[in-house]
Amino acid sequence: MKDIQAFVFDAYGTLFDVHSVMAACNKAFPGRGEALSQLWRAKQLEYTWLKTLMGRYEDFWQITEAGLIFACKALGLDTPPGVRTQLMSEYLRLAPYLEVHEALTSLAPLPLSILSNGSPWMLAAVVERAGLKERFVQILSADEVKVYKPSPLVYELAPRRLGIPKESICFVSSNSFDVIGAKAFGLQVCRVNRANVPLDELGFVPDAEVRRLTELQQLLKT
Amino acid sequence: MKDIQAFVFDAYGTLFDVHSVMAACNKAFPGRGEALSQLWRAKQLEYTWLKTLMGRYEDFWQITEAGLIFACKALGLDTPPGVRTQLMSEYLRLAPYLEVHEALTSLAPLPLSILSNGSPWMLAAVVERAGLKERFVQILSADEVKVYKPSPLVYELAPRRLGIPKESICFVSSNSFDVIGAKAFGLQVCRVNRANVPLDELGFVPDAEVRRLTELQQLLKT
Repeated sequence: MKDIQAFVFDAYGTLFDVHSVMAACNKAFPGRGEALSQLWRAKQLEYTWLKTLMGRYEDFWQITEAGLIFACKALGLDTPPGVRTQLMSEYLRLAPYLEVHEALTSLAPLPLSILSNGSPWMLAAVVERAGLKERFVQILSADEVKVYKPSPLVYELAPRRLGIPKESICFVSSNSFDVIGAKAFGLQVCRVNRANVPLDELGFVPDAEVRRLTELQQLLKT
Repeated sequence: MKDIQAFVFDAYGTLFDVHSVMAACNKAFPGRGEALSQLWRAKQLEYTWLKTLMGRYEDFWQITEAGLIFACKALGLDTPPGVRTQLMSEYLRLAPYLEVHEALTSLAPLPLSILSNGSPWMLAAVVERAGLKERFVQILSADEVKVYKPSPLVYELAPRRLGIPKESICFVSSNSFDVIGAKAFGLQVCRVNRANVPLDELGFVPDAEVRRLTELQQLLKT
């Protein structure tokens, strides 16, 4: 990768571990936590795509709650409103991956930002709680354009709001569709592939791939 | 439901059983047929959504093949091109559900059509093979508008090409996102819920729900 002037990170699944909600799910429904958190996450993503295609944008909090409601129904889990509120609140205190602080420090000479589907207030809460607020020059949300990734309108926020050409931005994501969407738009893209799984077959591949965020600094040397 | 002047059917999963490919998958990969056919179908749908969002339409045959390639990789199944071709060809001879002939006969006084993501030639092949060609006045494909369901541009094909107001068309689908997309556009919608599973939480519900297509004729009496 060359001429990188800024790093832009996806949030959920890239900086913050969405499956850290699994513990809370397992506490509410012993033995069903993994199934619930996986179906919840799958439906959360699916609903962002379907709502965008239908031209019926709703903010990420509503989408996330709808995904939870469906996942509980589909798994036959009776969920009182109190339990639902408790599980939803986990999204405001997701744990960052262990290497996040070290990785961001190593990249700090360059401006670092977030570009996420999350609502601005959700992102603010999770970044604040993780002690990462001072790390980022911009926290950009799909909510500004009222469509979700992988629409090019979302990725276009990065060069426009940063004032840096898209070819000089390195976008970093763990989500296969997000990697591909950003590449299709024209950003430089590094995939974080922690689980060593194949990339989706959607016609685009990232410029680089790492297993951990701490490997990103090596991209600056090449 | 009232003032129904025409029925329009989804194809895959509604008239034709997409999991009839499971047998072929199981023959190619003994014991892995169910996992492969389910992941293949899930990726096929996901890729229609993602390609549409990226503004990178590809026809349903290409999407279906990409889904198969990914599913095989993700499951660690080594797939020679010959096996892939064989599995793909199953999509041209999907079995209709057992009650399809009887159900269509009972509705025949009204014009019957198909509105599907499938490419025109894929739909023609599967309809011809099932002996259903004479049943339909129109076979409409998302390929005409180069986006996939649940984009309203797809559903808009039905009233436009049939010359019937959208409020007087009954759209029939087994796919939750398709039921909801059609309803959001403004068609009357009947869901076919063979497996008795919950509807996705996307803000719209169908006008009616049946377990089998043979129950559709009862909608004309209410």
